[in-house]
Parts: sequence; structure tokens; C-alpha cells
Amino acid sequence: MVTRQDVADRAGVSVAVVSYVLNNRKIVKEQTRQKVLDAVRELKYKPNLLARSLKTKKSKQIAVLVQYLGNPFEAGLLLRIESVAKTSGYFVFFQTYEEEQEEQLQELFMGRVDGILLLGQSMKRATLDYFTEMDIPVVSIMEPGELLEQQSFVDIDWMAAMRQLINHLREQGHKRIAFMGGGNLRHYNECRFRAFLAAIASEGLVFHAEDRLDGGGRFENAQECVQRLLANGAGKLPFGALVCANDLMAAGSLAACRELGVPVPEQLAIAGCENILMSSQTNPPLTVIHFPRPEAAELATRSLLAIMDDPTHELASPIKRLEGTLMIRESSGRLDSHPVVN
Amino acid sequence: MVTRQDVADRAGVSVAVVSYVLNNRKIVKEQTRQKVLDAVRELKYKPNLLARSLKTKKSKQIAVLVQYLGNPFEAGLLLRIESVAKTSGYFVFFQTYEEEQEEQLQELFMGRVDGILLLGQSMKRATLDYFTEMDIPVVSIMEPGELLEQQSFVDIDWMAAMRQLINHLREQGHKRIAFMGGGNLRHYNECRFRAFLAAIASEGLVFHAEDRLDGGGRFENAQECVQRLLANGAGKLPFGALVCANDLMAAGSLAACRELGVPVPEQLAIAGCENILMSSQTNPPLTVIHFPRPEAAELATRSLLAIMDDPTHELASPIKRLEGTLMIRESSGRLDSHPVVN
Repeated sequence: MVTRQDVADRAGVSVAVVSYVLNNRKIVKEQTRQKVLDAVRELKYKPNLLARSLKTKKSKQIAVLVQYLGNPFEAGLLLRIESVAKTSGYFVFFQTYEEEQEEQLQELFMGRVDGILLLGQSMKRATLDYFTEMDIPVVSIMEPGELLEQQSFVDIDWMAAMRQLINHLREQGHKRIAFMGGGNLRHYNECRFRAFLAAIASEGLVFHAEDRLDGGGRFENAQECVQRLLANGAGKLPFGALVCANDLMAAGSLAACRELGVPVPEQLAIAGCENILMSSQTNPPLTVIHFPRPEAAELATRSLLAIMDDPTHELASPIKRLEGTLMIRESSGRLDSHPVVN
Repeated sequence: MVTRQDVADRAGVSVAVVSYVLNNRKIVKEQTRQKVLDAVRELKYKPNLLARSLKTKKSKQIAVLVQYLGNPFEAGLLLRIESVAKTSGYFVFFQTYEEEQEEQLQELFMGRVDGILLLGQSMKRATLDYFTEMDIPVVSIMEPGELLEQQSFVDIDWMAAMRQLINHLREQGHKRIAFMGGGNLRHYNECRFRAFLAAIASEGLVFHAEDRLDGGGRFENAQECVQRLLANGAGKLPFGALVCANDLMAAGSLAACRELGVPVPEQLAIAGCENILMSSQTNPPLTVIHFPRPEAAELATRSLLAIMDDPTHELASPIKRLEGTLMIRESSGRLDSHPVVN
């Protein structure tokens, strides 16, 4: 039987590097990765057969680590993950990820899961290494905010989507656009902020550091944040448009404006980044970047299932980007076509 | 050491009955239950010590079975379950319950969970018996639609809450009120329907069998249902008010009315039953029965944790009802104060 050592020898790398490649971790240079995959193919190495025969049985379970169950965006991803996994005979269970309990996941998941889906968490290197050693592949939906090392993920092309949104807002006459994020640098919202900054620059606009708001990822926090800004500014805001990293914060900001009599979009244009159901039902409805949830969840789940069976599968490519689309609704309508109400 | 047999002998019942009582199952008559609990106290029986010493270790995990992750109502319950369990040092994991896979839960959960929380599912008798035998208590948030036998649950007093709602609608001048449910007879929505019927009767109104609508529990299905009714009735509905078993269906019904130019509440008053965030943000905002999610989730989780430690704990009483409160918003405002727009 061909061993991992044989593959390492043929490729001229260490066994650890072979493990990294077979578990789809991108800390390995592309050139080295190709060498290892070539060796795997030449030797017809079946990576998981031995490990699997050593296990008494497969768990047929996939674990999904959730960031915030209160966001219907994440819940929507879970629904599709479940339906795809079920079609392949897998059970799915969910658990909220908490950074300080990451170590305990190793024990909790051992022997209980065949693969792990993240929703954009920035896992520690030691944890990823552990799962690599155990041949438990990890795939993320959404790019983690902090990629200590590259790990496999599916996300949308935020750069392109943000450029569409900022271009739209600029066309409405906006020059000063604020951004509301939430969570820390390790949160997936951080990738959306980086894309926002790039889009601001590419549209020739300037971002004011004080226009970075913290809405904590939640409706209520965003609402309070905008209420406070309006109170401090005696009902006026220094910016004319606000892009929120998620729709919950956009809806919370909108609610604050409605309560305090600030007309949207005339005095403040508001946009979200996910397109949850609520965003189409608010008053006015919210302009959003549409994140294709079912497609992203399906691609990530299919990739994970494919890698679990065969790390050399074509779906094992570490980075996949889908297209996000701009959905223009009333919350960012043309300034000239909306006379100020107050 | 005092055994379960000793307790059975003292109480004059079978060992099975002792097991039922200690696992908080209400198929036992109250009088018998008291006899068993008296015997437990007199003999100072420690029910779980032996079973626990036989296990290699406690899993420190609780499983929660979800009905529909797409409903923010359920997601909100999960958030509070998690925070309460975490305070007590427990991990929580979630899984969507599917009736046809119920048998597999026994294998999936064995040795992995110390307790199970349901969200109103009607579990089969054999499954409940199995978990009883294994000393894995089961508590439900929401009364299951079909109680094959009584199991421990926390819910609101739907009879009282529905009476408030129907009384409010009657005061607005409504005589014919429709109900939109979803799911089958085993779904927790069924309890809301039974309470609705009782409230209709107690308010002296008549329910027309054809006014029972099926919105499948989902926004989109409810939207289609109302669109179809409006199309069939050439823009007219045979009823003036609609109570939906959950808020998602109320919001979907409202969206259908908005699209087709049916003024709410003038031509149709709409009310929901949960008070999810979205219901306060729709146009117009939705009247709802407020279900105290954090309180219900906390009480159910605390009860489960208490029973896991001590089946004779005072929180082990099988049925607990909290108060639901009526939140009147614009979707059901006074008919006389809202001139018809069209």
C-alpha cells in the first residue's frame, strides 16, 4: 500500500506538507501543492482509506460553527447546508463558535464529525493543524477576517460588489459615505470593510476615519449607535450615506432614523450587505448587496463532502468566489427624485 | 445503597413507574407521582448516582431539536438556551428534527448528551421511552401539537392570549376572522389554532371551516396563499381579519396585500403570534401576541438542567405556562379611525 511517506518522498517534501495539501490548507505554495498532487496521482495514493479503516465507523456527521444565530443571514446558510448534506446522507449539527472555547472543540468533535463548516471564523493555527492531522477537513463560508494562514473558503467577490454599491451611491450625489461594522478584526465583516475601503478609493472618494461606526452586528446596537450620533449632531449627520456590513444593522439604523424623523434616503441613504428577508419588508425597503446564500452554502457543503472523500477533488481549490449583485431599493433612491419631506 | 426497586416497593408501584416519575413524564397519575416522590424522599434515594457512575464521564452537552431554523422566533429561543446552558458549563448543539429520522437520534445522542430540549416536536412514545430508560430528560419549549403522552413543556397561556387578540379584533368591528396555520397536526402551531378556536367561541363568533388557511409556516407560502385568495375573489376576501400562527406568515400575508393594493388594516387586519423583530419593522407594523422568548427559553433550560441533577427538583413540574401579551400595532388599528384608502 502506498503511504503518505511515499508521496512525501516522491514530491521531495515532508509528510506534514503532504498532510497540509491533502487537507486543502493553503499555507503551502502553489508550486509545492502541485508537486504533491502530482505525486498523489502518479502513485495512485488513496489518502483516507487507511485512516478510515482504523476508525470503527464514520460518524456521518458534519459540524457547522455559527457566529450569530440571531442573524437570519446565517440561519439561511444553515438551511441550505442541511438540505445538501442530507441528500448525501449526512447529519448536520450546529454549535455557536466562541473563541475562548476553541480548544474544547477538538475533544467535542473527535470521532463525532467527518468534516467542519465554518461561517467565516478565524480559527487558531493549532486548531486547524489538529483537524488536519485527524483528516477532518475544514471549509468556511465567508472569508475569515483574519487569515492566520489561508484556509479553504467560499465567499462573494466583495471588491466587485462594493464597487457597484459605492458607484451607485456616488451617482446619487453622495461624497461622504460612512461604514458600520461589528465584531472584531477576526470577524468576516472585516473583509466587507476592506472591500468598502477599496471601492471608496477606486471611486475617487475619501473615507473619514470617524465615519467608521460600530453597530456590533446587531439591530439594537446599530439603532442605538445612530440615535446617539443624531443626538450628538442635533439631528444632523456628517455623512449622507451609510453602508452597513450586515442587513440587521441597516434595518436598525433605518429604525433610528424613522423614530427621530430623519427622512431616508433624503437625509441619509442606507444600504445593507446580505439581503435577508426583512430588508425587503422595511419602510422604506433597503438597498442591499445580494449575497447568494443558497449557492454559497451549497458550494461550500459540496466542497467539504468532496474533500472528505478525495482531497484531490477538483472542488478542493481553496478559494471560490461567487458574484454578489446590487439590489437597489428605496432606501438609497435618487436624491433629486425624492424631495425632502421635513 | 437504595435502589429504584426499593422506591418502587415502598410506593407500591412498578420500577417502570418510578422511572417515569423520575424522568418527569406525566403519563403517571398525580396521586401516584406524589407517592413515588414521597418514597424517594423517605428513602433518600439518589436516582442518578448509579447511572452516572456507570458512564465513563458526563458529556456536558445538551441537544436542541429545531423545527425550522428559517424562523427567527426559533433562532431567538436558541440564543437564550445557549447563554443559560453556558453559564452552567454546558455546551449546546442544534439539529433540525425530522420525523422520519427520529429513530436515528437514539444512536446519535447516546453518550453525547445529558439532556434534550425540544421546540414543540411531538416525539414518538418509543423514543421518549428510550431516553427515559437512559436517564436523558427531555423538556420542550412550546406544547407539542400532538401529545401522545404528556411530556414536560414550557409555553405561554395561548387561551388567554388568543382571547385578548380576538377580543381586540372584535372591538375593531370584525366578525369573520380567518386563521392561517402551517405544518401538520403534530406541529406546535396546532395548539395556537385550538386556542384560536376556543377564543372565537368565547367571543361569541363563528368560525367558517374554509377560513382555515395553510401558509406552511413560511413567508413565501403565506404570500402565495393570500395572492391566490385575492385572485380568486377578484381582490376581495370573505373575511376582514386574519390571525397567523407565526409572524413570518403574517408578514408574508401583509406583503401580498401591499403588492395587490389591498389596504391593511382597512380591508384586512393582520396579526401574528410571536413578535419577531421583523414584525415591528414592516409597513405597517404588525399586531402580534408577544411570546416572551428569553423567559421561556430560560425557564425550559433551567428546568432541564435541574431535572438532570435531581428529578425531584421543584422545577420538574411537567407543565409551565407564561403569560403572552397582546401588542397592538397598525396592522389591526381601529377600522373607524382608518378611512379606506382605495
